[in-house]
Amino acid sequence: MTIKFENNIHSFKENLSEYLPGNSIDCIIFGYQNQELHILLLQWKFTENWALPGGFIDKEEDMDAAAKRILFDRTNLTDIFLKQFHTFGNKKRGNDKNKFKPNLERNLLEQIFGESEAIINWLSNRFISTGYFALVDLEKTNPKPDLLSEKCEWKPLKEIPTLIMDHNEIITKALEQLRIQLNHLPIGKALLPTKFTMQDLQKLYEAILQKPLERSNFQRKILKLDILNRHEKKMEGGSHKAPYLYSFDKIKYTELIKYGIGFL
Amino acid sequence: MTIKFENNIHSFKENLSEYLPGNSIDCIIFGYQNQELHILLLQWKFTENWALPGGFIDKEEDMDAAAKRILFDRTNLTDIFLKQFHTFGNKKRGNDKNKFKPNLERNLLEQIFGESEAIINWLSNRFISTGYFALVDLEKTNPKPDLLSEKCEWKPLKEIPTLIMDHNEIITKALEQLRIQLNHLPIGKALLPTKFTMQDLQKLYEAILQKPLERSNFQRKILKLDILNRHEKKMEGGSHKAPYLYSFDKIKYTELIKYGIGFL
Repeated sequence: MTIKFENNIHSFKENLSEYLPGNSIDCIIFGYQNQELHILLLQWKFTENWALPGGFIDKEEDMDAAAKRILFDRTNLTDIFLKQFHTFGNKKRGNDKNKFKPNLERNLLEQIFGESEAIINWLSNRFISTGYFALVDLEKTNPKPDLLSEKCEWKPLKEIPTLIMDHNEIITKALEQLRIQLNHLPIGKALLPTKFTMQDLQKLYEAILQKPLERSNFQRKILKLDILNRHEKKMEGGSHKAPYLYSFDKIKYTELIKYGIGFL
Repeated sequence: MTIKFENNIHSFKENLSEYLPGNSIDCIIFGYQNQELHILLLQWKFTENWALPGGFIDKEEDMDAAAKRILFDRTNLTDIFLKQFHTFGNKKRGNDKNKFKPNLERNLLEQIFGESEAIINWLSNRFISTGYFALVDLEKTNPKPDLLSEKCEWKPLKEIPTLIMDHNEIITKALEQLRIQLNHLPIGKALLPTKFTMQDLQKLYEAILQKPLERSNFQRKILKLDILNRHEKKMEGGSHKAPYLYSFDKIKYTELIKYGIGFL
């Protein structure tokens, strides 16, 4: 079951039997730009199909480590906020040897892996896939396609195309989890510059929640969390109405991530 | 790979190859009694080892359906609160053909399944296990051991013994998730009788959070959620200080479960 390809993209091993069979990982990598959430997507070779970045778990590798590796391979980033959020195990996910036949994916696999039935059989199995979401500073990423894909690009949330398999559902679930997290954990450190205005923070929350928030109410509730340090005003032409700059207090932020924001 | 056993416990198929390889489910079934959380545990045959109820996923079965089936097999309950909370995929979880050797589990497996290397090999693989937690009315359950186990019993949280593999860690994670849920979702409908006093509800929250809560503060915050209906007083010897009985308002409770309790 040896795959012949240039071994420069180490998300795929030369020998698929080194991976756990029937288990995969899908990564929803969120970035933030122009007051909009973005997601990193791959376009598969020889097709119009877009997909989430993903991969398999080495038999000698922790699942979390596999997710970190996949993320690194696509973004060149380490030390990022990465969180397992849900495992997808519907039977419609596979166990169907015909799922690549006659459509384009099979064609693609054959072009990449050759006419190997063994590989196509391996890939055609039903996979239980664990989803991880990551929050990254989009500016720092250097997106790289993987072996199966032609392009690796940031897409704004409202321009996500129809993806392969259940990948759109996986994004919906990731967004739902991100919104729950937002109400339970401070989120923003990974997505904003070190110093930001209260309005920057509110815009990020609005982009995630996909709804407008009332300004003074938002400010009151965020300040009550006691995780921000206030700095100098942001000078823009010297107006005395210039907004203050804030940064997250690292210790308090970390403490709050540990215990969460509860209603009790 | 046919297993010879009385086929009266349908959590296990006669042919393990009907299951997805390398994927399992572990269930943390919470009940509540005497103001304490309890967890349903199994004691394996011929050993002193305790374990969480669990099982495998049929190749033609949704993963959620498999969790429901396992839960039903152990408790005889359907229509219960069941939630996937985390997937456990550390490499230390297996892929070690010696893990049953020379200890008691291998002995147990051989006594049940016979000397079949194929079965022991199948079970010795590294399993990625998805955890589900369930909240059930302990009084309504009729716990039944599975094929591998001698006993199936409710254990209060503070009397959980050392379990096999990483099952104690799985419980810790389930409790962490239950506490997060408690701050985000109304929890109690599955664990309390239809009518309860404010004190009953507070005791439940305290049992889950494992800390005392301040009475008037708790009452104020719970009432603010607007999910309770107030009924007659609970008469106990006719004292005028008798506490009111409450029930969850089904519509408002369901609505709140949908959107959660946020800090925004």
